[in-house]
Amino acid sequence: MGKNNKKINSAILVIGNEILSGRTQDLNVSFLANWLNNNCGISVQEVRIVPDQESIIIKNLLNLSRKFNYVFTTGGIGPTHDDITAKSISKAFKVKYEYHKEAFKILEKYYGKSKFNDGRKKMAKMPRGAKLIYNPSSAAPGFITKNVFSLPGVPSILNSMIENCKKYLVKGSKMHSKTLNLYTVESNISKKLGQLQKKYKKFVDIGSYPFFRLGKIGVSIVSRSTSKIKLTKVNKELINLAKLKRIKILNF
Amino acid sequence: MGKNNKKINSAILVIGNEILSGRTQDLNVSFLANWLNNNCGISVQEVRIVPDQESIIIKNLLNLSRKFNYVFTTGGIGPTHDDITAKSISKAFKVKYEYHKEAFKILEKYYGKSKFNDGRKKMAKMPRGAKLIYNPSSAAPGFITKNVFSLPGVPSILNSMIENCKKYLVKGSKMHSKTLNLYTVESNISKKLGQLQKKYKKFVDIGSYPFFRLGKIGVSIVSRSTSKIKLTKVNKELINLAKLKRIKILNF
Repeated sequence: MGKNNKKINSAILVIGNEILSGRTQDLNVSFLANWLNNNCGISVQEVRIVPDQESIIIKNLLNLSRKFNYVFTTGGIGPTHDDITAKSISKAFKVKYEYHKEAFKILEKYYGKSKFNDGRKKMAKMPRGAKLIYNPSSAAPGFITKNVFSLPGVPSILNSMIENCKKYLVKGSKMHSKTLNLYTVESNISKKLGQLQKKYKKFVDIGSYPFFRLGKIGVSIVSRSTSKIKLTKVNKELINLAKLKRIKILNF
Repeated sequence: MGKNNKKINSAILVIGNEILSGRTQDLNVSFLANWLNNNCGISVQEVRIVPDQESIIIKNLLNLSRKFNYVFTTGGIGPTHDDITAKSISKAFKVKYEYHKEAFKILEKYYGKSKFNDGRKKMAKMPRGAKLIYNPSSAAPGFITKNVFSLPGVPSILNSMIENCKKYLVKGSKMHSKTLNLYTVESNISKKLGQLQKKYKKFVDIGSYPFFRLGKIGVSIVSRSTSKIKLTKVNKELINLAKLKRIKILNF
């Protein structure tokens, strides 16, 4: 994908029975993937969704933490019995699971001493040595343990916290993309598209995605690269291909 | 989770750069999880989202195929160069990647001999011995290889095909659920909820999920079990807890 570029990759570990059961539609994966690429040039290379079970969380966390530069966990950092992310991460990295002094103070101040009950105190328990990710929505901080960033599952809260991760992340080269929407079917262009992908395989990823619009079928060709120059070249070739095949280009 | 129940589990392997990049919001996981539980009593225990890369698909596929009763793959079965699911599965299971006679006939009939080009023919190439999952939307069939069910990525097409998987699936015990929506915060009930989960841990899974409604904060308590009787018991205890704490129960 281009010369002189710095590849920083990551994985997302979604923790929560509610996502696996289908009760809740995950929205954090696409948000995180877009934010990480656009703001930090970090690509998401793998996502896993696992249940609220300690041994499973530990196993997947260690695996992803070894394989990727960063891991982002979502979910399981609230006050209830099924919130076991912090404890699981402590066990995974063999560090103590204990009150984080600053997190404790933040939460005590937020709720007031008299209303700072056991459930709320639980949200201050983290792996020893964790760095905090401040939470402007509901006070309870996320936390960073080694290369693992732990965020809440509620999308609006996660979104409000994400900017506070930025200073801890090493930036990579941003992946740029161009989309060309064609009024054709995939099989009409698949051969040429394959040839084009082969030609540019070191620099550009070309994906093909059917769409349906007002009863018509089309294909979005999405090219992605860290090099804007290569991307423009590929796009020109795609436009020529469309002209040659008399395919209408659609501007949304 | 109750006596005499039959546990059948599964995993979903989402294949596609467009999901990992955040361009496309996955909708298939929640659809499949709900459909599998409601129609077949099959639970989804793990989801992985991986890029269009053969070696990665193979590794994850074999891992999930060994760990779970069934694996459902979504995406990568179209006519373009980035559609490599069938080839990857063939390599994973060390079987030939070849034209499936019946699939070839179906597609040839659908497109007509003169329009049955190479891209379209590609959709008839499958792992040797695959069983077909018929596709009422766009003809190109899904396929079953050992315990792996391969479905397309476009949600409307996947949804139209899913009923055709039913006859190949061994049914398990359906997971029933009850939801109680309370106008309170999680930390107000977290202690009691933890005790309740402990008491019923063999039979019922209790999850707690905050919600926001017209500026008010609430918590949905979701209990899940294969036993309706145990579920009713837990729900009664939850209602008593709400009464005791003078928490308003919200009926949506």
